Amino acid sequence: MASSLSPFFLFLITCSATLITPANSLPTFFPGATYQSLIKQAKTPKPKLPFKVHYFPQTLDHFTFQPKSSKIFYQKYLINSHYWHKGAPIFVYTGNEGDIEWFAANTGFMLDIAPKFKALLVFIEHRFYGESTPFGKESYKSAKTLGYLNSQQALADFAVLIRNLKQNLSSEASPVVVFGGSYGGMLAAWFRLKYPHIAIGALASSAPILQFDKIIPWSSFYDAVSQDFKDVSWNCYEVIKGSWEELEAMSTQKEALAELSKAFRTCKSLHSTASARDWLWTAFVYTAMVNYPTEANFLKPLPAYPVQEMCKIIDKFPSGATKLSRSFAAASLYYNYSRAENCFEIEHEVDTHGLHGWDWQTCTEMVMPMTCSKESMFPPSGFDYEEFAEQCQMKYEVLPRPHWITTEFGGERIQKVLKKFGSNIIFSNGMQDPWSRGGVLKNISASIIALVTKKGAHHVDFRSATKDDPDWLVEQRRQEVEIIQKWLNEYYADLRHA
Amino acid sequence: MASSLSPFFLFLITCSATLITPANSLPTFFPGATYQSLIKQAKTPKPKLPFKVHYFPQTLDHFTFQPKSSKIFYQKYLINSHYWHKGAPIFVYTGNEGDIEWFAANTGFMLDIAPKFKALLVFIEHRFYGESTPFGKESYKSAKTLGYLNSQQALADFAVLIRNLKQNLSSEASPVVVFGGSYGGMLAAWFRLKYPHIAIGALASSAPILQFDKIIPWSSFYDAVSQDFKDVSWNCYEVIKGSWEELEAMSTQKEALAELSKAFRTCKSLHSTASARDWLWTAFVYTAMVNYPTEANFLKPLPAYPVQEMCKIIDKFPSGATKLSRSFAAASLYYNYSRAENCFEIEHEVDTHGLHGWDWQTCTEMVMPMTCSKESMFPPSGFDYEEFAEQCQMKYEVLPRPHWITTEFGGERIQKVLKKFGSNIIFSNGMQDPWSRGGVLKNISASIIALVTKKGAHHVDFRSATKDDPDWLVEQRRQEVEIIQKWLNEYYADLRHA
Repeated sequence: MASSLSPFFLFLITCSATLITPANSLPTFFPGATYQSLIKQAKTPKPKLPFKVHYFPQTLDHFTFQPKSSKIFYQKYLINSHYWHKGAPIFVYTGNEGDIEWFAANTGFMLDIAPKFKALLVFIEHRFYGESTPFGKESYKSAKTLGYLNSQQALADFAVLIRNLKQNLSSEASPVVVFGGSYGGMLAAWFRLKYPHIAIGALASSAPILQFDKIIPWSSFYDAVSQDFKDVSWNCYEVIKGSWEELEAMSTQKEALAELSKAFRTCKSLHSTASARDWLWTAFVYTAMVNYPTEANFLKPLPAYPVQEMCKIIDKFPSGATKLSRSFAAASLYYNYSRAENCFEIEHEVDTHGLHGWDWQTCTEMVMPMTCSKESMFPPSGFDYEEFAEQCQMKYEVLPRPHWITTEFGGERIQKVLKKFGSNIIFSNGMQDPWSRGGVLKNISASIIALVTKKGAHHVDFRSATKDDPDWLVEQRRQEVEIIQKWLNEYYADLRHA
Repeated sequence: MASSLSPFFLFLITCSATLITPANSLPTFFPGATYQSLIKQAKTPKPKLPFKVHYFPQTLDHFTFQPKSSKIFYQKYLINSHYWHKGAPIFVYTGNEGDIEWFAANTGFMLDIAPKFKALLVFIEHRFYGESTPFGKESYKSAKTLGYLNSQQALADFAVLIRNLKQNLSSEASPVVVFGGSYGGMLAAWFRLKYPHIAIGALASSAPILQFDKIIPWSSFYDAVSQDFKDVSWNCYEVIKGSWEELEAMSTQKEALAELSKAFRTCKSLHSTASARDWLWTAFVYTAMVNYPTEANFLKPLPAYPVQEMCKIIDKFPSGATKLSRSFAAASLYYNYSRAENCFEIEHEVDTHGLHGWDWQTCTEMVMPMTCSKESMFPPSGFDYEEFAEQCQMKYEVLPRPHWITTEFGGERIQKVLKKFGSNIIFSNGMQDPWSRGGVLKNISASIIALVTKKGAHHVDFRSATKDDPDWLVEQRRQEVEIIQKWLNEYYADLRHA
């Protein structure tokens, strides 16, 4: 049994849910009502960002004319016009599944390059995330409200907002380049495909547009996570791989929950051993994703090359220690690098960035099947679509449309179509990032370029430049700037000839 | 005041509604409830066609996941597999605003060329037309049901149906070419743009994709109608141009309705002089549209070059006859070429082809502003968007989105975008057709080709070949076949190299 993992989705998602979870309970990657109600939405102070906040009166439903369709909601967007002058380019971040400030704070690249291009920066929040909730607190109540949350509506939002913004600024001739990371990167690439009259190019960072249907092997994702650990230390990989069995064995014992709570230093007693498993799982998956070359704080504060650090912890353990205790120690790095935690809120994980809408998206169109192969460091498992669909039905009274994304945006033929029919897209990927396996890793044409780094992780190119950045990262960003400059030169040349 | 005219829309649509209509009544191009209730839906015998009828379980709403969205309706499609073998191309007609049989019967071109290509022929009915009504007889009840009638849902229908059909036929590798005329031509072109992974090319005949927003001058359409008549005879043009004033003068007289009813040989007494004006107007506009070089029966049975025939009637009238009586005689050709009518059902026009959904489409997204210039043969008039929107609000409780089509599919920049980003589209047009002014009339690139004939009319190239076809028409069709063959050769070559 597997599921569709969100690039940022903080609820644990595993490819094996039946291992520990009692047969009748919901797998934890579908947090049931009880579990979910425990999840606090954090009210963390927003980072200070050099952007002005705006709200755009957006149409609820672009694709029907129901009585409700024309309802207006206020879509948040951030603007920085410090470097801009009329006619100069507009760089738009196509927001993904979280608060837009979070993406703005973690896409310093756009701020870094704005002066060179004299660009206007716009970060548009994705509908149903952050403050852009069409039905306020009722937005997540049921399919009746959530029904309007999907990628095509989001793309249409971007189109309408950008067109309107350009009109208001009397800057219809300004070229627009869209930027997006992860799901936002898919949106940027799809936007360039579906709205080429609005964006002249797209930089899609870590965008797994091939993660759907049967385009790539379903085991790719977890194989890639495992590869990251294997590459650092075979022992590390084997310890983690062996720890699940120890956890399972432990869970059958008397007092398992009490013992586990103690071993995992939980703040409150555990209600399920599955939580402990999920907690470990999250740590390994997300650490692989954000295996950045410098200290960073995207999902959590972490040191440079955190996979290496985790494996150091595992490898230097005294012999005789259990695999589970080593895995726990390694995972603790993910949750407590800043050493601010005295105990762990394993069953009360906080949704700091407002990501909970992604679960709905995976239950409707964002069906990305994942399995764990025997070679992965996770317990082997398949993907049972029927079971998955049943869970969605139970939770949201909705059935997924597993072939819709490939029908709407292209499936196995997508790369051929891009080659013939597309232009001006950069797909940037770092091979440390397990999502890279669903990305475009080879140049498709002269103007659809894959920029791949061996040591890069999840949209690392979008992070602010630091003095410690390795050469390969500096070079990747330099190429991005060069290509975008080329697109703009071509655009302005066309404009002059028109 | 003007409106969005449907290529086939049989209710009269004028660019001047305030001329005769009493100020407080609805302009006739928005048939009010009373008027509309008089319109009979004809149950004419369907033509015998070499197609098998199928019904596809289609999703009601592709772009939301409301509780209602996944409701299934049965979408009709016609298949002819007589010439096909597996792997050979699939030619799909992207149905427009009427019964699919009507389009199949008037698109003999596809049947004519099927043997050469060994093509499978598929004619897909557009949702809400013909038998493809998602809510049966309730489909047209209100915005609640009609809300799902629009072009993007229709395009998604085509995508889902084609993908499914290819799977069922185990013919995923068969290339699909889409064909469409008029609004169906817009759909074919847009389909190629938005779903290039599904169709390798599109033949869009008489597709006015530039008729939106402010892309072309709003007076183009009626100027073109007038030009058709001017080109045949200046006197003919002047007679028609002068007849509106006579009609207006007449309408202020006592017994105007009784007199008009007599003069216009109506079966039942007229309730409004506007009906007489609309009846004339329709005749001139539609005759210009279907000014075919051979006898034909698309909208009505008509002789070859019917504009010429109308002008002959006008020009050979004895001097001293009123302009109105001449115009009436000319219009009678349109309504009674077959001489089957003893009187005219001026206020009880029959909707033979099930076109009444178009009115809704013009009130939502298909806003094509039209005006009548002083040079046209129609009374001069502007386009008052506010008034138009109010009428839509009154009739359907819906407000138009006049900029949506250009946001979704491209506006002023569309030709530039096609040049850079598109390929494999033929835009065929005949300059007799007033819709040609909203069409693509010049080659955009090596693979986006405009085939324009001076003497052609509304998608005349789609009609079955006849022994009387003029050379220019034979040549236009020959070029279409040649270009489609080229697309297919390229596709199969790519396939072999893959």
